Amino acid sequence: MSEVEAKKPQENLQDRLAQVVELLHRHRLVEELTHRQEGQHHDRVENLVHRQNLVELQRKLDELHSADVAHILEALPLHDRLTVWQLVRAERDGDILLEVSDAVRETLLADMDDHEILAAAREMDADELADLAPELPRDVVHELMESLDAQQRERVRSALSYDEDQVGALMDFEMVTIREDVSLEVVLRYLRRLKELPGHTDKLFVVDYDGILKGVLPIKRLLVNDPDKQVGEVMADDPVTFNPDEDAYDAAQAFERYDLISAPVVDRNGKLIGRLTIDEMVDLIREESESEVLNMAGLREEEDIFASVWKSVGNRWAWLAVNLVTAFVASRVIGLFEGSIEKLVALAALMPIVAGIGGNSGNQSITMIVRAIALDQVGTGNTARLMRKELGVALINGLLWGGVIGVVAGVLYDSWSLGAVMTAAMTLNLLLAALMGVLIPMSLLRLGRDPAMGASVMITAMTDSGGFFIFLGLATLFLL
Amino acid sequence: MSEVEAKKPQENLQDRLAQVVELLHRHRLVEELTHRQEGQHHDRVENLVHRQNLVELQRKLDELHSADVAHILEALPLHDRLTVWQLVRAERDGDILLEVSDAVRETLLADMDDHEILAAAREMDADELADLAPELPRDVVHELMESLDAQQRERVRSALSYDEDQVGALMDFEMVTIREDVSLEVVLRYLRRLKELPGHTDKLFVVDYDGILKGVLPIKRLLVNDPDKQVGEVMADDPVTFNPDEDAYDAAQAFERYDLISAPVVDRNGKLIGRLTIDEMVDLIREESESEVLNMAGLREEEDIFASVWKSVGNRWAWLAVNLVTAFVASRVIGLFEGSIEKLVALAALMPIVAGIGGNSGNQSITMIVRAIALDQVGTGNTARLMRKELGVALINGLLWGGVIGVVAGVLYDSWSLGAVMTAAMTLNLLLAALMGVLIPMSLLRLGRDPAMGASVMITAMTDSGGFFIFLGLATLFLL
Repeated sequence: MSEVEAKKPQENLQDRLAQVVELLHRHRLVEELTHRQEGQHHDRVENLVHRQNLVELQRKLDELHSADVAHILEALPLHDRLTVWQLVRAERDGDILLEVSDAVRETLLADMDDHEILAAAREMDADELADLAPELPRDVVHELMESLDAQQRERVRSALSYDEDQVGALMDFEMVTIREDVSLEVVLRYLRRLKELPGHTDKLFVVDYDGILKGVLPIKRLLVNDPDKQVGEVMADDPVTFNPDEDAYDAAQAFERYDLISAPVVDRNGKLIGRLTIDEMVDLIREESESEVLNMAGLREEEDIFASVWKSVGNRWAWLAVNLVTAFVASRVIGLFEGSIEKLVALAALMPIVAGIGGNSGNQSITMIVRAIALDQVGTGNTARLMRKELGVALINGLLWGGVIGVVAGVLYDSWSLGAVMTAAMTLNLLLAALMGVLIPMSLLRLGRDPAMGASVMITAMTDSGGFFIFLGLATLFLL
Repeated sequence: MSEVEAKKPQENLQDRLAQVVELLHRHRLVEELTHRQEGQHHDRVENLVHRQNLVELQRKLDELHSADVAHILEALPLHDRLTVWQLVRAERDGDILLEVSDAVRETLLADMDDHEILAAAREMDADELADLAPELPRDVVHELMESLDAQQRERVRSALSYDEDQVGALMDFEMVTIREDVSLEVVLRYLRRLKELPGHTDKLFVVDYDGILKGVLPIKRLLVNDPDKQVGEVMADDPVTFNPDEDAYDAAQAFERYDLISAPVVDRNGKLIGRLTIDEMVDLIREESESEVLNMAGLREEEDIFASVWKSVGNRWAWLAVNLVTAFVASRVIGLFEGSIEKLVALAALMPIVAGIGGNSGNQSITMIVRAIALDQVGTGNTARLMRKELGVALINGLLWGGVIGVVAGVLYDSWSLGAVMTAAMTLNLLLAALMGVLIPMSLLRLGRDPAMGASVMITAMTDSGGFFIFLGLATLFLL
């Protein structure tokens, strides 16, 4: 779909959402009134108003770009979402299904019967079908595959054979190919015969008779060069290419780094099998950044903001359970020192400060490191250097803030030795936080795991148990 | 710069980094040896090896795309970074300065004299100069402006007049404009005369004699339509346009939503004044996602991973200080109940569990809400509905996990009433966490502030103080 069809996106999205909500609201009021009168005779005037509202809403939706309808669906609670979804014209179903998030798509598909899903899917390209297939009922997929021609079916199968984080799962098949030994004039005539070019065509792919990629002809070069020149003279013969089993996120970083719009995907023999485009890469960059945020907070996956309470519980319970165990461990650490606390109850009031500041500081360290790893700026080889830096920062912060809180505690409880223990414990716990803030993500990286995975929960576990142990331990040694 | 100049980006970036580090390492070994022999006669053989290493390193760097050199500079500690920087050919300085992060750029500029900076800046376009100008010494900027022609100077001034989060600061001026009343054939001939097209030219801008934007001609349409047709017949007359004072992040979301490659920027009168391109928008999308991660963890800004310890302390101290205050408040809350803890020391061991699980659960809620706000999925109007959902999740988790930990505590301390208090406190604190997880970002949004700002520190403050108060309060009421 061309961007030209998007009507006035400058009009604030929130405004458009508000208009839809307003219409829905009127619709619902009428619905409730009608509902209350059930059993009585139906009021025709109200039914008319009801229908008028829906017609206005439908007109509004027809004017919107599919991406905007998708956005509105995301932002509506389930009941309203399905009302709007039923008003969307059937021929746009496919486009919109591809735009919404996985969580919301599930709710929309659940509302469609097999017949509707098949109709929507028939409009799709092979790569889009492959995106959708894993979420469709098995017999719908079967029927769909039957309806495809051999080449399409092969493409869907091939796209499905890759993991969702591999280039092969994200490539499309809409590449325009040309031969090396024709003139630009011939290429221009050929394009004119095509009537339409696929989206994001900033280059044509030059292949030989076996389909082996020989180079790319950027449209820019096609336009500025003499039409009598041969493709072979003008093309770039050393383009950036990708393999289908490469990591998709690496490809996205290459797109970002080299400012690519599209790039060919070739197999091991150099045969052109598909292409990547910037729009898929942008989505990926956003998803990656988001999953980093979610993972650090201990959420398993993207959550439909209006998902049911039970779904949300399901998404969040795992890390809460881990946290429960770590909190229990911290509690047992305190349990070891119950005797000390009984003798000096001020320890109970002061210990959460030591643990809390440690947690905060550790979270800062781990966030920095996780980001640097995501940007490929550090490998396991840098561990020692990063460690020295983070320990340095921790030492300064420990002596500084530990000193401040030590003086406050000393004055408050009229005990300078208590203040000194406080300062020492703060400094040691910040050092522990720095150590773990580097070691946890670096170890996860070395083990081939996602370094952001529950980083926040783990570092907090360390600084809680560690902080309590250090503070109560020092206090027991020196104060009692 | 065309992507074609990027040599084999498939070769792993980490590998290339490793090669550079290896060469640097050899260089440094020799340097150290030479250093030790200072005062003695210099060993010519070692000096030769030294120089050979640097020559090899320079050759390596010359082969790399500017973006890759920038990446390597980011990933090197300061001393090595400057060694590499001095080996980069002067004519590439400008390109590379534009690619690196602000933090690293500062270290590179500090290493250049005014003459070098001027030479690098002379290669730049107006929009690139405007990006760099705020970080340059005042007299260098002055001298630069003097050397520009009137139009360029005007463009730099205009770009500098916008905030960095406005469209005007991100637009460039490399638009190709055509008239409505010429044939496509004439356009094709015109382009051929240009010899080169600016990067990311996927559409030409159609303007009238006053420079007012009449429409855009997508290159795709130029290629597939009959050359005898007029531009006016073929162009899209209702394109997506932006104003220079619009929020740049909104523009980036529009690029993402409508899959744009480039888009015209027009002033209030509809006059074409610049264009936005996808590469700037991708950078912005990444920066936004990152600043969300950093803000939530209480880091003020992006930090050069090898920044000095003092710089890092400066970046992190603010939220640590806030955290210190909140931790102190939590400590005073416990102080209120010192009498109760003296009587029942188990309370001291159990209270961090209540606070910790509350903090974790609150962080999950606030992360979800901050994300939904960033994606424009919720406005202040949804508060009540989100609140109901989060409270529902909290209630279930509280009864479930609170129940588990209540039983464990009951068995451990052989007191069912203690277990019951534990369950009740957990449930209430999770409800508080949910309430605050919605209210904090929603209030920040209503106040026009960044909802991610220190979200994690604030929610933890609430759940700590709140958790201690609820648990110790209930215990004091029911157990003593």
